[in-house]
Amino acid sequence: MAGSRIALDVMGGDGAPAATLQGALKAIADTSPHDLSAGDILLVGDPERIREGLDALGGDPGFEIRPASQVIEMGDSPAVALRKKPDSSIAGCVAAIREGQASAMVSMGNTGACVGAATLGLGTLEGVRRAGIAVTLEFKGRAVTILDMGANIAPKPQHLFQYGVMGATYVRDVLGVESPRVGLLNVGEEPSKGTDLLKETHGLLSGGSLHFVGNIEGGLLFRDAADVVVTDGFTGNVVLKLLEDFAAFMMEQVLTELRAHEAGWVGEALANLRKNIDYSEYGGALLLGVNGTVVIGHGRSEAGAVSNALGLASRAVAANVNGHIVEGLAAVR
Amino acid sequence: MAGSRIALDVMGGDGAPAATLQGALKAIADTSPHDLSAGDILLVGDPERIREGLDALGGDPGFEIRPASQVIEMGDSPAVALRKKPDSSIAGCVAAIREGQASAMVSMGNTGACVGAATLGLGTLEGVRRAGIAVTLEFKGRAVTILDMGANIAPKPQHLFQYGVMGATYVRDVLGVESPRVGLLNVGEEPSKGTDLLKETHGLLSGGSLHFVGNIEGGLLFRDAADVVVTDGFTGNVVLKLLEDFAAFMMEQVLTELRAHEAGWVGEALANLRKNIDYSEYGGALLLGVNGTVVIGHGRSEAGAVSNALGLASRAVAANVNGHIVEGLAAVR
Repeated sequence: MAGSRIALDVMGGDGAPAATLQGALKAIADTSPHDLSAGDILLVGDPERIREGLDALGGDPGFEIRPASQVIEMGDSPAVALRKKPDSSIAGCVAAIREGQASAMVSMGNTGACVGAATLGLGTLEGVRRAGIAVTLEFKGRAVTILDMGANIAPKPQHLFQYGVMGATYVRDVLGVESPRVGLLNVGEEPSKGTDLLKETHGLLSGGSLHFVGNIEGGLLFRDAADVVVTDGFTGNVVLKLLEDFAAFMMEQVLTELRAHEAGWVGEALANLRKNIDYSEYGGALLLGVNGTVVIGHGRSEAGAVSNALGLASRAVAANVNGHIVEGLAAVR
Repeated sequence: MAGSRIALDVMGGDGAPAATLQGALKAIADTSPHDLSAGDILLVGDPERIREGLDALGGDPGFEIRPASQVIEMGDSPAVALRKKPDSSIAGCVAAIREGQASAMVSMGNTGACVGAATLGLGTLEGVRRAGIAVTLEFKGRAVTILDMGANIAPKPQHLFQYGVMGATYVRDVLGVESPRVGLLNVGEEPSKGTDLLKETHGLLSGGSLHFVGNIEGGLLFRDAADVVVTDGFTGNVVLKLLEDFAAFMMEQVLTELRAHEAGWVGEALANLRKNIDYSEYGGALLLGVNGTVVIGHGRSEAGAVSNALGLASRAVAANVNGHIVEGLAAVR
């Protein structure tokens, strides 16, 4: 059905187009947890490279292609790239949503360019002041969704309050948490802690109809203290990049220690560890608040992550997250 | 010599007073890297518990004691505790510096109370607008000093600029880095990135005489991109607490994986790992900018960390970090 079709930025990400095409094929091959067919995915990018890529992977199962002649590279400045590359695959995904050809998009490309293109090209949902990037991290089975991860680095209290509403809606609709606990990232637990921005936001969140559990300190982020943690895009971005690097650093250390030994179980132990600290299983970040479903994955995504991102986009559309965000915000106005 | 004597808050920290007394004894037993004698350490706390504690540890090598009848607990609200417990061991350490009985203090107690008591009781150094907490983290031999870690959650550009000067002075004087590279924690490398606060700070740091290497993203914090990283106290506090918890979490994961196996080298591998990700080896955080040398260690500190903190305080005094901070700030005014 065209209504829930997902536009896939085939050209985005470090492994593109091979990894993205493999991901698309994997998504339609797997029947669980999502049930996508070739008709549900719209491939956006260079038609020739897409056809070559699909041939190399065993043939085209019947994907539709939307041509896009340009590629925004990971290192490009988002603002410059969006201006100089109007026919990029990212712009093509956004146009596909705007024109009703798709209702969601998935890109493993330049995050800033995706946010910029989607915000400008789709506009925000009714009642939404600013879009925010939500990332779900899972540690040992405990999932926490944090937003904003960098779309809005100098938010106002009302923006943060709306992130609480949007994050809770997403977590309830897509992750199935009935009454998501919403926390505010802060330097102490008391309502009087933090900057003026946070004190005012604390008041707004306390007064709303959310299940607000108050301030959450950095050290409690992974201790199941909340399902949704609200923060400004500056802090969120720093935290996300730091965690990614720190996790990689720790794995290097573990690897160095274990490599010295020949035990047969070392490989398996490492794989288990990777799984437990892998926070890409949800497939990517969701840009909440724009008029469309936008999933942005990590540039390093391989086929599995691309497939998961397509699944996430599909679930978000099916659960009508955006409709519920509009309703939720209308109720608190 | 009384001039460089260090007041030790015997009652502060989870293991007090046993851990702090053991730390004091360890500091005078070890001749390297610092050379402290009993006369260099002033024990501040309940005299009876101190004498009992020393007896249990083999006797008093000749420490002087400054009595303090009250203890600020880790969970106490700093503002309330400072008002209601005027004779606390933390207040006693600050008074010892103010009265010339010591030139430095070390506490493993309530961080907020230490910052409050030292800032109010000692005042700031000449030319310093706001004190900041500097923490040196070492990952695999690469040290990075980050400030502010929470003393000043809503700084102005001039404060952040001064943190750059103070941090560089500390790293040069105490860690021996000749021309410390100073970076600014931000969401992107370009000078135009970040909030207005950061754009303005970038200009100030660029115009100074520091070895300023520009913006540092969260993911580069541990990649030896800078020796000193400047950030606001809100972000710094969130980052520090998050890293502590995340490191603990990762170690739990590694432990779980390895525990399943009986190999004899597992214990050694774990110990090595802990060492590589242990960022308490420097003994604690330095509160830079106050009129005295103030080292605040982790509440969980054991004897080794207490001894390291005493050594850090001793080196900071001997290197005249505070004198150099005053000179450095005078030069850029």
